Order: sequence, then C-alpha cells, then structure tokens
Amino acid sequence: MKIELNSIGVIHSPFKNLEGMPIQPSGAAGVKGTVEIFEEYRAGLKDLDGFSHIVLLYHFHCSHGFKLHVVPFMDSEMRGLFATRAPMRPNAVGLSVVQLILIEDGVLDIQNVDILDGTPLLDIKPYVPEFDFQRDVRTGWLEKTRGTVAGRKSDDRFK
Amino acid sequence: MKIELNSIGVIHSPFKNLEGMPIQPSGAAGVKGTVEIFEEYRAGLKDLDGFSHIVLLYHFHCSHGFKLHVVPFMDSEMRGLFATRAPMRPNAVGLSVVQLILIEDGVLDIQNVDILDGTPLLDIKPYVPEFDFQRDVRTGWLEKTRGTVAGRKSDDRFK
Repeated sequence: MKIELNSIGVIHSPFKNLEGMPIQPSGAAGVKGTVEIFEEYRAGLKDLDGFSHIVLLYHFHCSHGFKLHVVPFMDSEMRGLFATRAPMRPNAVGLSVVQLILIEDGVLDIQNVDILDGTPLLDIKPYVPEFDFQRDVRTGWLEKTRGTVAGRKSDDRFK
Repeated sequence: MKIELNSIGVIHSPFKNLEGMPIQPSGAAGVKGTVEIFEEYRAGLKDLDGFSHIVLLYHFHCSHGFKLHVVPFMDSEMRGLFATRAPMRPNAVGLSVVQLILIEDGVLDIQNVDILDGTPLLDIKPYVPEFDFQRDVRTGWLEKTRGTVAGRKSDDRFK
C-alpha cells in the first residue's frame, strides 16, 4: 500500500549538517528553531498557542535507504532498527516533542530542537500527557545509557 | 515536496468501525490487538522485546480529506486542526503509544489499542521517557476535559 504525503511547512534550526547534532530533544535543551507553516495550512494553527509542547512529525529528508540492523548512537552493538530511533527507516518519518514558545504570522518559535535545518514538516499534534505519557516503562538496551543522551552528539553513520 | 511511504505491516484490533472507538490509548486500557509485520521487515524487530511501550505511526486509511477547523471529540467548539488529534489531516498519519506484550513470528501482541482494525503500519519506535516525556505542560483547550478522555468514544464526525 503506497501512501503519498506532502510537506506542510519547513523546520529551521542551527543544524546544517547531520554530524555533531544532538540526538534527541533532551540533548538539545535550549536550542531554538522555527517552523514555517505554508500559507494554505496556517488556519489550522488556531488554538495551538495554548499548548506548551507539540509533537512534530517530519521527513528525514537527508537519510536515504535503510538497514534492518544498525549500531545506534547510544550503543556499540547491532540493534534491530525498530528498537532504535535511527533516521534511516523504511518510512523515514521522524518524531520530536519540542517546546512551543510563540506563534506569529504562520511561524512557530520552538525550543529543544534536535532537527536538521530545512527538514520538511509533515504534521503537528498537541502534546498531551494523558495521551502520550506512560508509567512503569522498560527500555531494553537503552536502560544503561538513556540518562546520558543529553551529552551525546550524532556522527556520520546515518548519512 | 512529495514523500511516498509504504506500509510495513497491518494493525489488528477489535474496532471494525470508526464510530464507538476509544479516542486515545488512555481510553483503550486493556484493549488487545496485534501488529503483523511484513516478512521483509521482521529482522528489524530484534531487541524490541526489551521495551514495555512502543510508538506506532500509522496511516488513517479511512479518513479522507481534511478541514483546518474541526470540532474535536473532546470539545463542542471549533478548534484549529493542528491543536487537535483528529484523524482527517493534510498528512493522515496517526500516532499511538501502546503497551508491548509479546513478539512472536513477526507478530506483536499489544495492549491499550485505540486503532481501527486493518490500519496500515508505517513505523515502530521504542518509547523512551527521556526522549518523549515532558514536564510542566500546558494543554490549552484540553485543560478542562483531558482527564475525561478515558470515558469518551468516537462518533462519525471524521468519517
């Protein structure tokens, strides 16, 4: 089944290269960016300013192809792709929860941005703890290192 | 910019119709379902069984077209589409965090399923609180009602 998507905007950030980026929003604390929503979709932003955090879905436009086993940034062992957040995926869709600061003239000022500059935006959803937060969570191979994500940077392995 | 996706599996659930469904995983506590991963992607499931919760990205395949202002299930007022989780979106991609029970022969047993039977799966990501959980959250128009989501069901408004 083929599904065709169209970008609804563009994400801007200080990150111009895939290397040396924070690998999750928690490693991008304080990093500011903007999301420019294309004119024809701007009416859909009504009421979004009431939310402090939003979920961005976007296209990993610089990642081409995929492998089902990868060595993720947080590890030195081969892991199944779907047990990682690596960008080279069968459907190269990324997900980041970022802080929403301001919306003005169809442009969102956001913070905690771990996204490459120029990334095509696919969707915005409001972040709602009652929908998205889980308790009593196990995180498999990430148990040992997940607390260190803030200090890690990307390299060129998923280029 | 056009982006073409292919489904990597199919989600099965007790919900055969868009009407009368739970409207978020928190309203689907205990509801069981399965995710069948197509043969060619199954190697990517390695290590996923270490995670108690997973993020499913899927295609809202029964929702066609979109409106930029909608009256969401949780409200009686018109809201901007991107301030809601309504399924009729410019890019009809859904996101649910579900509990992972078991993986066997390329089939995932999952729980807390708020997804229509037969839904095409686009991606699986591990749920990691350090990446996905936010503190000090404001949720705009949902502040008043978000605690009541567990008791709400869908109707036919997004058919």
